[in-house]
Amino acid sequence: MNYLKSLKDLFYHELQDLYDAEQQLAVALPRMADAAHSPELKEALTDHLTATRHHLERLDKAFTELGAVKTGVTCEAMKGLIREAESIVEAHGDPNVKDAALIGAAQRIEHYEIAAYGTARTFAEELDLDDIADLLQDTLDEEGDADERLTDLAEGNWFEEGINEEAVA
Amino acid sequence: MNYLKSLKDLFYHELQDLYDAEQQLAVALPRMADAAHSPELKEALTDHLTATRHHLERLDKAFTELGAVKTGVTCEAMKGLIREAESIVEAHGDPNVKDAALIGAAQRIEHYEIAAYGTARTFAEELDLDDIADLLQDTLDEEGDADERLTDLAEGNWFEEGINEEAVA
Repeated sequence: MNYLKSLKDLFYHELQDLYDAEQQLAVALPRMADAAHSPELKEALTDHLTATRHHLERLDKAFTELGAVKTGVTCEAMKGLIREAESIVEAHGDPNVKDAALIGAAQRIEHYEIAAYGTARTFAEELDLDDIADLLQDTLDEEGDADERLTDLAEGNWFEEGINEEAVA
Repeated sequence: MNYLKSLKDLFYHELQDLYDAEQQLAVALPRMADAAHSPELKEALTDHLTATRHHLERLDKAFTELGAVKTGVTCEAMKGLIREAESIVEAHGDPNVKDAALIGAAQRIEHYEIAAYGTARTFAEELDLDDIADLLQDTLDEEGDADERLTDLAEGNWFEEGINEEAVA
C-alpha cells in the first residue's frame, strides 16, 4: 500500500506502526522488569506493562472507529530500541549500574513513543478525527508521566538516594 | 568490555553509543533533506546536519578530556530509526504527505537523542564531570530546539498553513 498518497493513509500507517511498537514492548517489558534489581524500578516497568496493554486497547478502538484493518507493519525503530534493552537485560555487572542502564533504555523507548504519539495525535487533529485525537492524547500524557517517573527514579526524588548515586558508590 | 561494571564504564558506553548514533545521522540527514519538498523543511534538516557535526565535535572533546578511546559500538536503535526514515525517503507519494512523514521520522530521531543525551548528562553530573555535563547539556538544548522547530513546521506556526494542512488539502 502506498501510505504517502494522503494524510489519512499516512495516519493509518502511523497507527499500524504504533500498534506493532506497543506489541513488541509488551513482550520486552516483563524481561526488563525481571532484570531490574531495585523493587521500585521493577514496579515502574510492571506498571508500564499494564499501561502498554491499555494503549493497545485504545489503538484497537481507533481502528474500529476508522473501520481500518490491522496490517502487518513492523516498527523497525522499536526493534532497534528493544535490541538495545535486551543487550542490557542479558549483560552481567553491578546491579545498580544495570538498573541505571535499564532506565536509560526505557527512557529512550518512552521518548520514541512520545514522538510517535505526538505525530499521530497532530495528524488526527488535522483530519478532524477529534475522538481519536483525544484517545491518542490520553496515551501521550501517560507516556510523559512514565518518562518522568523514570527520571525521578534515576535522580532519586523518590528515595534518599537515586539509583545513579547508588551506582557510583 | 563489561560496560556494567561501574557507572563510569556505563557512561563511556553511552558516549560511544551517541557517537555512533550521530555518525549514522550525519549520513542520513542529507538524504532526508534531498527528499523533502518544502524549502523550509530542507533548511531545517540541513541546519540539523551542521548541528550534528558540532555534536560530534563535542563528543570528541569529551573523549579527549576523559582520555577515552573510541571503540566500535553500534547504536542499534539509531539503525532502526534511520531504516524507518530511509523507507520514507525511497517511497513515492504526495509531496506534502511525504514531508509530514519525514518530519515524523526526524522527530522520532530527535527524541531518541534527547533521551540519550539526558541520560548521559545525568551520569556526567553523578560522576562530577561538570565540564562534560555542560557540553552534553548544550547539545541537549540544541536537540530540543530542533524538535520544536519541526513541530512548528508541521503545525504551521511558521507559515500561513502548516505542512500537515497542505497534506490534507
